Amino acid sequence: VALVKIIEYAEGSAEVKVVYDDIMKTRGIDWVNNFWKTLANDPKELRRVWQNVKQVMAPGALDPLVKEMIYLAVSVTNGCEYCTYSHTAAARKKGMSDAMFMELMAVVGLANETNRLSDGLRVPVDRQFIP
Amino acid sequence: VALVKIIEYAEGSAEVKVVYDDIMKTRGIDWVNNFWKTLANDPKELRRVWQNVKQVMAPGALDPLVKEMIYLAVSVTNGCEYCTYSHTAAARKKGMSDAMFMELMAVVGLANETNRLSDGLRVPVDRQFIP
Amino acid sequence: VALVKIIEYAEGSAEVKVVYDDIMKTRGIDWVNNFWKTLANDPKELRRVWQNVKQVMAPGALDPLVKEMIYLAVSVTNGCEYCTYSHTAAARKKGMSDAMFMELMAVVGLANETNRLSDGLRVPVDRQFIP
Amino acid sequence: VALVKIIEYAEGSAEVKVVYDDIMKTRGIDWVNNFWKTLANDPKELRRVWQNVKQVMAPGALDPLVKEMIYLAVSVTNGCEYCTYSHTAAARKKGMSDAMFMELMAVVGLANETNRLSDGLRVPVDRQFIP
Amino acid sequence: VALVKIIEYAEGSAEVKVVYDDIMKTRGIDWVNNFWKTLANDPKELRRVWQNVKQVMAPGALDPLVKEMIYLAVSVTNGCEYCTYSHTAAARKKGMSDAMFMELMAVVGLANETNRLSDGLRVPVDRQFIP
Amino acid sequence: VALVKIIEYAEGSAEVKVVYDDIMKTRGIDWVNNFWKTLANDPKELRRVWQNVKQVMAPGALDPLVKEMIYLAVSVTNGCEYCTYSHTAAARKKGMSDAMFMELMAVVGLANETNRLSDGLRVPVDRQFIP
Repeated sequence: VALVKIIEYAEGSAEVKVVYDDIMKTRGIDWVNNFWKTLANDPKELRRVWQNVKQVMAPGALDPLVKEMIYLAVSVTNGCEYCTYSHTAAARKKGMSDAMFMELMAVVGLANETNRLSDGLRVPVDRQFIP
Repeated sequence: VALVKIIEYAEGSAEVKVVYDDIMKTRGIDWVNNFWKTLANDPKELRRVWQNVKQVMAPGALDPLVKEMIYLAVSVTNGCEYCTYSHTAAARKKGMSDAMFMELMAVVGLANETNRLSDGLRVPVDRQFIP
Repeated sequence: VALVKIIEYAEGSAEVKVVYDDIMKTRGIDWVNNFWKTLANDPKELRRVWQNVKQVMAPGALDPLVKEMIYLAVSVTNGCEYCTYSHTAAARKKGMSDAMFMELMAVVGLANETNRLSDGLRVPVDRQFIP
Repeated sequence: VALVKIIEYAEGSAEVKVVYDDIMKTRGIDWVNNFWKTLANDPKELRRVWQNVKQVMAPGALDPLVKEMIYLAVSVTNGCEYCTYSHTAAARKKGMSDAMFMELMAVVGLANETNRLSDGLRVPVDRQFIP
Repeated sequence: VALVKIIEYAEGSAEVKVVYDDIMKTRGIDWVNNFWKTLANDPKELRRVWQNVKQVMAPGALDPLVKEMIYLAVSVTNGCEYCTYSHTAAARKKGMSDAMFMELMAVVGLANETNRLSDGLRVPVDRQFIP
Repeated sequence: VALVKIIEYAEGSAEVKVVYDDIMKTRGIDWVNNFWKTLANDPKELRRVWQNVKQVMAPGALDPLVKEMIYLAVSVTNGCEYCTYSHTAAARKKGMSDAMFMELMAVVGLANETNRLSDGLRVPVDRQFIP
């Protein structure tokens, strides 16, 4: 159960509807997911977060699928349930296959393992890695 | 300062040298980084971790640069200093430009932000995201 | 489902009842929440944790609502479901409005973002920040 | 050592200088800290993050010192060294005393303890906490 | 709901069945838990992870129950729900009593508290602790 | 550099000296480590944390070395530098050999890997694991 009201389109203020419309148009879909419907309790926060997502996730030096998989890797590392479901769905929509998903998970798992080994053994940074 | 001895090539047992040789050959370099030199305190552990890295990071459904950037995204999210330096170096060697690095960081930062917003607002998973 | 028994008031030993009574009296309520009912499986641990909460959360240099919001900020950052529900309820009881909650979440989200950017870019600490 | 160039004011593009000027003016100081100087490697990212910080940290339903202490609580929970130094300095500038700092740390510590106890015992959320 | 198919024994390829058989034989049980049934979507990944678990969790310098409790301590610290349930069950099977479980949780909770206090106060490492 | 004053024995108030004396007596050593010297900035907090450590780490259902290794496993998972050095030193003093330390690290690394795999694949908890 959400800790704030889920604000449906019909209930939203004009400021909220503008963002909902932009989300649906940008993504080419006819619905808005719950993440935005909870943020809508503070319309300025809704707009702020959406503008960030729109800017950061736009095609650039990295392609959109790669960005989405990086987003998912972070979400899994943080153990965020909502984010893992939503970004897996988003990545699949952008072309992530089952094989790619399983490989992504393998990399995420291994990175979490060696991160802790490095931290635990207190491995000194090699001078070759210092820019 | 490492919590265990840094085992140089000359000091390594035959079992250790086999792994060091394979690391250098696989990566086409003539040195071994400190991570492996600390793991070498337990040769079986050294071999286990190296075999995992070799298998998981090999080209597959995802290309090696993408895998390396995912590895880096996890390392940054975990705040692992050694891993951030080493995997940034590895990703640059595989072709990550400054623009790609900055964009990767932007995605990692944003994902960490929206992960916590989702967790904090306890957003219910939309049925559209359930496979 | 809890991993240990939920110990209701009637089932508690005298040692447990003393703590339950003090929780209810201190908070001015007539029920005890599940967190304490699980800790009650080890009465000494129940008393230890309650004494800590009582001491640390008492009014002091920081006012109780501020402390409760800090507690919530940590709970959200750790992705703790139980703690997010319980400390949101506690903060609301102490006066946190919807607007304050949304702003708190915005700060928590942003902090998580810039924390990772700082870690990822390995930003050197400015000498002006060193006490 | 930073993983990207530290861009000083004199080296910045016009786009970068506009942000640096706004940071100094908003904060009433005559220098820019390293966090922004690393983000300046991507001027659009620099502007994006600064606009977020400016919007989220402005006075609102919560007062600026409370926001700064929440920011610090998150930074400590994430173990971010740079952020801990910079937000402690910022909070002190906004009025955080030694006593407030020690109390803030006590709350952060305790929250991290009970978060893990709740997660470990898998405590069910009380119906009284569900909004 | 899992993000990939749960692969039952009857549906598994020969490669999958070999691993399932080894899991059941090694553990002396007649069923396979869901963790492996999801990994089976990538048989090579299934085998890799199983071989790691088998090697690392075998009796060695540490006894199996101690290893299992360490595994559980990490799982709780990471807030992993599945892992907390599965490794609590595994530890109980290896002899962990209620009293041991409660004490384990107390240590995990306290460590999380003092970890954050150390990070937050930026305590310098004593020279006596440097090997 | 610590964010608060390091309070040496000679500078401590009577309240501080009582705790320092108890730490040294309990541990059978003639010095106090920096963790306590920073907490001493708030004598009540110093006493609170010390009493917790003393109670939780005392011999009980788990032996002191096992408790110390669990403490270390958590510290490594949280990436806490100070804690990793101090609890490795403490565990060695209580009998942890190099082989035990390397094995402990292997378990911590593996647990971090499978924690993320479970979270990422959203593995449903098997009914057999529910108490």
